[in-house]
Amino acid sequence: MTTPKSQGRLVYFNGKMVPEADAKVSIYDSALMFGDMVFEMTRSFGKKQFKLREHIDRLYVGLKILRIPLQMTPEEMERACYETMEVNDHLFTADDEHRLMIDVSRGLLGIYQGIEGLHKGPNVIIADFPLRWTVATMGQLFDTGINAVITSQRAIPANLLDPKIKNRSRIFYLMANIEASQVEGDNNWALLLDPDGFIAEGTGDNFFIIKNGVVITPEGRNILRGISRDYVLHELCPQLGIPVVEKNIEPYDVYTADEAFMTGTPFCMLPVTALNGNPIGSGKVGEVFTRILNQWSANTGVDVKGQIQRWDAERGDVAGASAPTPYRFKSK
Amino acid sequence: MTTPKSQGRLVYFNGKMVPEADAKVSIYDSALMFGDMVFEMTRSFGKKQFKLREHIDRLYVGLKILRIPLQMTPEEMERACYETMEVNDHLFTADDEHRLMIDVSRGLLGIYQGIEGLHKGPNVIIADFPLRWTVATMGQLFDTGINAVITSQRAIPANLLDPKIKNRSRIFYLMANIEASQVEGDNNWALLLDPDGFIAEGTGDNFFIIKNGVVITPEGRNILRGISRDYVLHELCPQLGIPVVEKNIEPYDVYTADEAFMTGTPFCMLPVTALNGNPIGSGKVGEVFTRILNQWSANTGVDVKGQIQRWDAERGDVAGASAPTPYRFKSK
Amino acid sequence: MTTPKSQGRLVYFNGKMVPEADAKVSIYDSALMFGDMVFEMTRSFGKKQFKLREHIDRLYVGLKILRIPLQMTPEEMERACYETMEVNDHLFTADDEHRLMIDVSRGLLGIYQGIEGLHKGPNVIIADFPLRWTVATMGQLFDTGINAVITSQRAIPANLLDPKIKNRSRIFYLMANIEASQVEGDNNWALLLDPDGFIAEGTGDNFFIIKNGVVITPEGRNILRGISRDYVLHELCPQLGIPVVEKNIEPYDVYTADEAFMTGTPFCMLPVTALNGNPIGSGKVGEVFTRILNQWSANTGVDVKGQIQRWDAERGDVAGASAPTPYRFKSK
Amino acid sequence: MTTPKSQGRLVYFNGKMVPEADAKVSIYDSALMFGDMVFEMTRSFGKKQFKLREHIDRLYVGLKILRIPLQMTPEEMERACYETMEVNDHLFTADDEHRLMIDVSRGLLGIYQGIEGLHKGPNVIIADFPLRWTVATMGQLFDTGINAVITSQRAIPANLLDPKIKNRSRIFYLMANIEASQVEGDNNWALLLDPDGFIAEGTGDNFFIIKNGVVITPEGRNILRGISRDYVLHELCPQLGIPVVEKNIEPYDVYTADEAFMTGTPFCMLPVTALNGNPIGSGKVGEVFTRILNQWSANTGVDVKGQIQRWDAERGDVAGASAPTPYRFKSK
Amino acid sequence: MTTPKSQGRLVYFNGKMVPEADAKVSIYDSALMFGDMVFEMTRSFGKKQFKLREHIDRLYVGLKILRIPLQMTPEEMERACYETMEVNDHLFTADDEHRLMIDVSRGLLGIYQGIEGLHKGPNVIIADFPLRWTVATMGQLFDTGINAVITSQRAIPANLLDPKIKNRSRIFYLMANIEASQVEGDNNWALLLDPDGFIAEGTGDNFFIIKNGVVITPEGRNILRGISRDYVLHELCPQLGIPVVEKNIEPYDVYTADEAFMTGTPFCMLPVTALNGNPIGSGKVGEVFTRILNQWSANTGVDVKGQIQRWDAERGDVAGASAPTPYRFKSK
Amino acid sequence: MTTPKSQGRLVYFNGKMVPEADAKVSIYDSALMFGDMVFEMTRSFGKKQFKLREHIDRLYVGLKILRIPLQMTPEEMERACYETMEVNDHLFTADDEHRLMIDVSRGLLGIYQGIEGLHKGPNVIIADFPLRWTVATMGQLFDTGINAVITSQRAIPANLLDPKIKNRSRIFYLMANIEASQVEGDNNWALLLDPDGFIAEGTGDNFFIIKNGVVITPEGRNILRGISRDYVLHELCPQLGIPVVEKNIEPYDVYTADEAFMTGTPFCMLPVTALNGNPIGSGKVGEVFTRILNQWSANTGVDVKGQIQRWDAERGDVAGASAPTPYRFKSK
Repeated sequence: MTTPKSQGRLVYFNGKMVPEADAKVSIYDSALMFGDMVFEMTRSFGKKQFKLREHIDRLYVGLKILRIPLQMTPEEMERACYETMEVNDHLFTADDEHRLMIDVSRGLLGIYQGIEGLHKGPNVIIADFPLRWTVATMGQLFDTGINAVITSQRAIPANLLDPKIKNRSRIFYLMANIEASQVEGDNNWALLLDPDGFIAEGTGDNFFIIKNGVVITPEGRNILRGISRDYVLHELCPQLGIPVVEKNIEPYDVYTADEAFMTGTPFCMLPVTALNGNPIGSGKVGEVFTRILNQWSANTGVDVKGQIQRWDAERGDVAGASAPTPYRFKSK
Repeated sequence: MTTPKSQGRLVYFNGKMVPEADAKVSIYDSALMFGDMVFEMTRSFGKKQFKLREHIDRLYVGLKILRIPLQMTPEEMERACYETMEVNDHLFTADDEHRLMIDVSRGLLGIYQGIEGLHKGPNVIIADFPLRWTVATMGQLFDTGINAVITSQRAIPANLLDPKIKNRSRIFYLMANIEASQVEGDNNWALLLDPDGFIAEGTGDNFFIIKNGVVITPEGRNILRGISRDYVLHELCPQLGIPVVEKNIEPYDVYTADEAFMTGTPFCMLPVTALNGNPIGSGKVGEVFTRILNQWSANTGVDVKGQIQRWDAERGDVAGASAPTPYRFKSK
Repeated sequence: MTTPKSQGRLVYFNGKMVPEADAKVSIYDSALMFGDMVFEMTRSFGKKQFKLREHIDRLYVGLKILRIPLQMTPEEMERACYETMEVNDHLFTADDEHRLMIDVSRGLLGIYQGIEGLHKGPNVIIADFPLRWTVATMGQLFDTGINAVITSQRAIPANLLDPKIKNRSRIFYLMANIEASQVEGDNNWALLLDPDGFIAEGTGDNFFIIKNGVVITPEGRNILRGISRDYVLHELCPQLGIPVVEKNIEPYDVYTADEAFMTGTPFCMLPVTALNGNPIGSGKVGEVFTRILNQWSANTGVDVKGQIQRWDAERGDVAGASAPTPYRFKSK
Repeated sequence: MTTPKSQGRLVYFNGKMVPEADAKVSIYDSALMFGDMVFEMTRSFGKKQFKLREHIDRLYVGLKILRIPLQMTPEEMERACYETMEVNDHLFTADDEHRLMIDVSRGLLGIYQGIEGLHKGPNVIIADFPLRWTVATMGQLFDTGINAVITSQRAIPANLLDPKIKNRSRIFYLMANIEASQVEGDNNWALLLDPDGFIAEGTGDNFFIIKNGVVITPEGRNILRGISRDYVLHELCPQLGIPVVEKNIEPYDVYTADEAFMTGTPFCMLPVTALNGNPIGSGKVGEVFTRILNQWSANTGVDVKGQIQRWDAERGDVAGASAPTPYRFKSK
Repeated sequence: MTTPKSQGRLVYFNGKMVPEADAKVSIYDSALMFGDMVFEMTRSFGKKQFKLREHIDRLYVGLKILRIPLQMTPEEMERACYETMEVNDHLFTADDEHRLMIDVSRGLLGIYQGIEGLHKGPNVIIADFPLRWTVATMGQLFDTGINAVITSQRAIPANLLDPKIKNRSRIFYLMANIEASQVEGDNNWALLLDPDGFIAEGTGDNFFIIKNGVVITPEGRNILRGISRDYVLHELCPQLGIPVVEKNIEPYDVYTADEAFMTGTPFCMLPVTALNGNPIGSGKVGEVFTRILNQWSANTGVDVKGQIQRWDAERGDVAGASAPTPYRFKSK
Repeated sequence: MTTPKSQGRLVYFNGKMVPEADAKVSIYDSALMFGDMVFEMTRSFGKKQFKLREHIDRLYVGLKILRIPLQMTPEEMERACYETMEVNDHLFTADDEHRLMIDVSRGLLGIYQGIEGLHKGPNVIIADFPLRWTVATMGQLFDTGINAVITSQRAIPANLLDPKIKNRSRIFYLMANIEASQVEGDNNWALLLDPDGFIAEGTGDNFFIIKNGVVITPEGRNILRGISRDYVLHELCPQLGIPVVEKNIEPYDVYTADEAFMTGTPFCMLPVTALNGNPIGSGKVGEVFTRILNQWSANTGVDVKGQIQRWDAERGDVAGASAPTPYRFKSK
C-alpha cells in the first residue's frame, strides 16, 4: 500500500487531474471555514462502482438544500468519476477495490475572492483510493461482531443540522468515537441516540435489528439515509423474502432483538453482537445477517467478508509501521 | 487591495512560511472530513494585536476538549503569530490592520497516514490579511444599525455541539445567514435562538441589549464566549461605570430594550436598531452604545468606526469587480 | 361587492336574523376575554354547501372538549345554516358562493351576567358572505404556486393548546403571517413547524407533498384536521387511485418532493412550488396536483380554479379602494 | 348591583361613549377571529386609579410587538380612561372602586373591510365597572387561603405565545380553571407549570413564596409580569425591608416554603395555604403576607381585605339570583 | 379472607417455603436500597395460571437489562411457581384464584455482604394470595366505568427509566394515584401522559380506545407492555375479527373515541367511560368492550366480571374492618 | 469487621431493637412494591453524630411531600437514633464511626393489610453499622482523584421524580454505575447530566468545581441537596473566606475548571481529577480542595482522609474474602 506505485494516484480537481498529495483546499474555502462541503464516498465490487448514481443523486440533494450553486450536471459528475478511476486503475492491484470520495465545497468565502491564484466558485474533487485502507482492522469483526456503545454524545436532530445531508459539520461524530474508545474491549463502535432517546445511527453507519424474522431500522429522520441501508431494505431483503420495517427503536428493542447489524459502504454489513457489553440474542453472529450478507456477495460477485479478511491478513504480513491506524478503535 | 503587492502575503504553515495561495489543507485532513479544526481570528489596532493571548488560550481549551494532541506551546504559538505578521507587514498599507486566522486541525485521519508527501500530526496554520476585507460593507451599519432577524434555524445547544469551542462544524451558521438574507431590506443579520427559545448569538457575533442603563447579554452557555464580549463586560463597562448582567434573554426583552448591539472581533461593536423590522428603543443608534464604542477607540488609539467607514469609502472608489462580496448580506 | 345590495346581508344571531353590521359580541363575552369560541367556516359549490355536516360535527367536538354547554342540536344548527343562506341568497350574484362562518362562544363570563340587555348562555352566530372576499388575490397562485416560508414562530403543540379544536386563541397564526410577509417576494405563505421540527400546517391550511406518486401529509396531531384535507385523503385520492400516507414530514422531505400543495376550504387546493425560495420538484405546478384539483371540480360541478381567477379578474375591474386587503400577503 | 342605576354605565368606544350593553365587537374583527386583542384591567383605591400609566405602558408594549398600528398616544389613552370614569362615577356607590378594562384590537380583517357601517382600523374600548363584581366570593379566601392546584394543563412557553403580552389567545387558562374546579374542596385555584416543570403563574395571577424571610417569585419569563407583582417586588417589600428574589421555583420549593401568596390587580394579594391539598408552612395565613398586605392598605388608604370582605357580606344580603357566578370556583 | 386458614399461606423464598408473614427482605438488599427488583404479578382462571410463561419471559428480559445475575433458569422459575401454588392451594376457597407475585432482587449490596445470616446473591420470592384482595371494590366499575384522570404527574420516559422493565422504582405511580384521588367522584383512576403529551398508561394498567370499530392503544414505548394488553391485541381481537392499531394517542383521540378501557392482569378489562369527567362516547359501557370481555371469559371458562362482582358482594357481607383498603381510590 | 462481636448489632424497628439480620421488610410493603421509602444515611466524627437534625429534617420533608403519615415527631426520631447507637456502641472498635441508616416506608399496601403478623402503618427503621464498610476502597482516591464519567444514563428531572426527596426509586443510579464501570480504569465514578445537559450529580454524591478561587456547584434542582454540600457551601467555605456560587454548569465548565470534587456523607469530600479521562486543571489533587477538607477535619476533630486510608490499609491485612465489594467500581 505504501509502494511508490500506489503513490502515483491522481485526484480530479475542478476538471484537472492532480497528484493525490496536491489535492488540497484553500484555508479560505467555505469547506474549511464552516464545514460547508457536501460529499459522497463509494466503493466498487470487482472494480465496478456500486450505486454510483444513487450516491451522486444524494450529493445533489445536499447541494440544493445548502444552495451551493454547482454548474456541473449529475451526468458530468458521473463521467468525472469514471475518468478518475480510469487514470488510477493501473495503480490498483488486482484484488483492490476503488473507493471514491466526491467532495463539493461552496468555494472561497466572498471576502477572500480577491486573492489571486485561487479557484473561484464551488470546488469539485474526486479522489480514488484502495478500499482496503478504510476497512483495515475490520476483518475480525465479521466473526466477533461489534459491541455497540451508546455514548453520552447524542445525535444532532435534523431540525438543527440535517444528517440526511452528507456534510462535513460533524465533529460530534469524532467526539462519540473517542468516547466509545474509552470503554473496555476492542470492538466498540459508537451508537448515537437522538435527543428523544431513540437510536439514530453509528458515526458513519446505519443500525438494524432483527426480531422474529423482521429486519427493523430507525426511521429515516435523524440519520443519514445510507445507500447500503436502502440496498438492504429495498433490494436484498425483498429478494430474500425478509420483511422490513422502519420505525423508532429504543435500547430495549435492541436488548430483546434476535440479531443486530450495521451497514456502511466500505464494509457493506457488520454484525453487532452486543449493546453496552450486554449480548444481543445469542451473542453470536446471526443467521439472518449471514443470509443477507451472502446475498450481497452473490449479487455483486465479491465475497464481501472474505475479501476484507484477506486484506486484513495481508496487512498483518507487512510492517506494522505502515499499517493505517483505525480512527474508530482504541490504539494499542 | 488586489495590487500585486498584497498578493505577496505569506502564511505560517507548520513552521514554514508559504505563499497565501498555497495555504491549503489535504482533502484527507480531519478538518475537511469532520469540520475538526479549532481556530481563532484576531485583529490589530494600529497594527498591534489585541488580546492575542486570550485568543490563544481559548484555542487551547478547544484543543484540549477535542483531544487534538498539539505539541506546540501557547508561547510558541504566540511567537509564530508575531513572526507571521513581521514577514507580511511590509505588504500592508499604513492604515491597514492585521487580521490573523489561526487554524489547528487534527491532521490526516489514521487511514490516510500512509500517503506520502503529507504532513503527519496536527496542522498549525496562521494567515495574516487586511482587516478591511472582513469589514467591507459594514461602514454604513454604524449609522443605520443592523436589523437582527430571528431565523427558524436555531443554535445547536452546547450539550450536542459546544459553541464555546470555536470549531468549523458550523454549517448551520451559513444556513441562518442565507435565511436572513431572504428578508426584505439590506441590513439583516441572523440572530439565533437556542432550542429553549432564548437568544443565543449571531452567526459569528455576540448580542447585547441595554435596558435602564444596564448592559445585558445572554449567559455564556449556547454561544461562543467572544473576546470582544469579554472586553465589553469586564473592561469597558466597568471603566465607564456601566453595570453588566449575563442572563437569559428573550425576544420580548429585546423589543422592550432601550438599545442593542452586536460585538465581533473585526468590527468591535455594531448597533442593532431593529429586531425583525420592529425598532428597538428609538430605532436609532443609542447613546450608551456610542459611549462604549468611543471608549474602545480611546483605549486602542484607533477610531474604530471612522477607520471602517474610511475603508468603505475607499472601496467605493475602486472598481466594483474587485470588491469583496459580503457573505452575510444579500447580493444586489 | 360594496353595492348597497350586498350590504343587506343578515346574520343568524341566537335565533334571530340581524343586519351584518350589527353582528357583534359583547366585550364581556368569554370569546373576547379568552379567545373562547369554537367556529367553522364553510363554502358552497354552485351555492350548495359542501360537507356542512362534517363541519358541524367538528364544531361539536370542540364544544364538548371545551365544555361549552350548548343546548342546540347539530340538526338544529344545520337547519339554522340553511335558513341563513335562504334569507341572504337573493343578495348573492349568480356566480357567488356562500361562505358561512359559524361561531359558538361560551357567552358572558359569570361575573358579568348581571348586566342587563345581554344574552345569557352561549352565543350562536352564523354569517353568510361571498366566498370571493376570502379568495381575492389568490387567482394567480394557481399558476405561480405559493412559496411556503418556514417561520421562526412555531406551532403550539396539541398538549398545550389543541389545534384540532378550531378555536380563536390563535394570535400566533397572525404573528407567523407577519413574519412570512417580511420575506422578499409576493407569494409567501407561512408554514409552521411543530416544536419537534416536523411540519405542522399553514396558518389556516393543511400541507401536502407528493413523492413518487404518493400523497403525503403530516399526521393529524399538531394541526387542524381540515375538512378539505379529509376530502383529499379519503375521497379524491382513492377515487383517482392515488395512495395517501399520513406521517411526520420534515423540510428535507419537502425539498426532495416532486410536488406540494396546501388545502383550505375557500380555495380547495393551491400548489406550493417553493420552500423558503428553493424550488420544489420542477418548481412548477405539478401534474398530480392538477389531477386532484380537476377531480374536485368535476365532483362539485364547479371549475375551482377558473371561478377564483374569474373573480380576481372582475375585482381588477372595479376601483382598488373597494378591494379587500389580503391579510396573508404583504401590502404594496 | 343590578339596580337600574348601575345599568346606565357607558363605555368608551373609539372616541364615543356608548351604553355598556352596546359595547360590542364585530364578528369580523381580528379580536374575535384570532384572539388578537391587547388589553389591561385596572382598579382604583378610594376611586383613584392605581398604576394606570404602568398598565397603559404595558398595553403599548403589546401593541408594538403584535404590530397593531394604533394612532392614539399613551397620553390620549390615559385621558380617555379618566373621561370614562368621570361619566360613570355617579353610578358607583361611595364604597365602590372603578375597574377599568382597556381593550385594543387590530380591527376588521382586511377581507371584511368592505362591509359598511363598521369601524375601520384598531378598536379602542374602555369599560368601567364596579370592582366588587370581580372579587365576589373572594372575601373568605383572605382567611382560609387558596389551595393552589397544579393542573395537567401547562403554561404555553413564551417562545410559542408570549404571556408577557396581555392578549386574548388564552383559552388554556379556562381549561386549567375547569380542571382545578374538579378537585375536591372550594378554594382551588389553578397553578400552571411551564413545560420545564417550573412554576409559572396562576390563570390571571402571579405566585410568590416566602422562605426564611425572603419573598421569592418565578422569573419573569413564562408569565405575565403583573403590575401588582412589580409593586410587591419593587415598592412594598423594599419599603418593609423584605428582600426579594426572582428565580425558577419548583413544587418542592413551595412544599418547603414558610408562606405563599398570589397577587392580582382586583384583590391585590391572597394567601395560598396549600399546594395540592398539602399545607404550606403552618397551613395558615402567614405573617409576612399580612405585613405586606397591610402596607398595601396603608399606602393606598384602603383596607384591601376589609373592603372585599364587606362587599362579600353585602352580596350575601341580596338575592342569590343576581349574584355573579365566579368563573374560577366550582358552582354549588 | 382473614380466617386463620388463609393465614397459613407459604411463600417461596430462595428455594424454601416460609410463612407469608416471614417473607421479608433485608434492609440492606438492593431492592430496598435502589428499588432494584424485577417482578411479575399473575393470576389464574379456574385456578389455572394464565400466560405464566409470558410473565416469566418478561421477568428475564428485565433481569438481563438490569444485569441481575440470576442462576435460575426460566424453567426452574416456572416449576417454583407451580410448587408454590400447590402448597397453598388447600387454603384457597373453591372460587378463589391464585395471584402470584414473583420478585427477583439483586440481593445485598456489596458493602453489606459481610453481615452474617443473610442470603448472598439474588433473592427469588414467589408469593401466592387470593386474587380477590386485589380486585376488591372493583366490581361496580364494570357497570359504571372508570373516570380516567390525567394527572400533572407524567410518566418517566423510557430513555430515563424504562417502564418496559417491570421494576420497583416507581414511586411516581403512587404520586399520580394520590393526585387522582383528590378529584371529586369515586371512580377516578390516574392516566399518565408521557413528556411529549401522548397518553402512556395507567399506574399499573394499559389504556385502549375504540374508534369506528378499531381497537387502538399507545405504542409500546413509554409503557409496560402488559401481558393482558398483548392478549387483547394479538389473540382476542383477531379471534373476534376486530382490527387493532398501536399508535400515539392524545386526549383529543380519547374525547372523540366511541369507547375506552383499561387492561390489567387482576381484572382483565375495565371500561373507561369518562376522561376528566367528560363522557367518552355514550358515557356508558360499550358494546365492543363487552364483546372482548365476554370472549375472554369464554376462552378461560371464568365469568370475569361475574366473579369479581360476586367477590365484592361477599366482601360486603363481612365486617368492614377486615376489608382491604383499595390504594387507588379515595378513602371514605 | 466480620468478627462475631460485630455481628451482635441491633436495629431499631418500629420501637424495638432487633438483630441486624432480622431487620427486614415485608414483600407487601409499599417500599418494596413502589420504592416508596424515604431515608437518610448519616455518619459520626469521633462517634458523635454529624448534622443529625439536618438529616432528620430532610427526611420529614420527604415524608410530607410523599404524604406518608408518620405519627412520630422529629424529636422522637432523633431520640431513637441515639438509642440505637447506644445499644450498639460497645460493638464498635475505638476508631470506628457510626453510620446510621434511617428508613421510613409507607407500610403495607391497603390490600395486604389483612395479613396477620405484620406491622400496620409506616415502618421506621434505624440501622447502625461501621462507616468503614461504605468507604472501603476509597482510600487511594484521596491521592489519585476520581475520574468522573458522564454516562448516557441521565438524571430524571425533578418534575418527573424529585431527587430532592431522598427516596428508593432510583434504579437508574445503579444503571449509571454499571455504565461507568465499563470504562477503562479503576477510579471511574458516574456523573449524571440532567435532560438539559447540565451537570446534575453523582449517584449518591454532589459535584463541585473550583474556578479562579470560587467554589461552584449545580443549582439545587435536579439533585439531592446533600447535607455535606450544604456544609461546604454555608459553613466551611465562608469559614475559609472562599466564595461559593450555585449555578448551572456544563462539561465545558469542568474541562476549564482549576479543580473539582465530590461530596458525600461517608467520605466528606473526594477530589475529581479528570472528566471522561481528560485531566481537570493540573490533573492532580487541588490546593483549595485540600484546604476545605483540612478545615473539615479540624472542625470535627477527625482526620477524614487519614482515617479512611487507615481503614483501607487495615482492610488489606485481613483476608480478601471478607472484604466488602464496592458497588461503584469494577470488580477485579
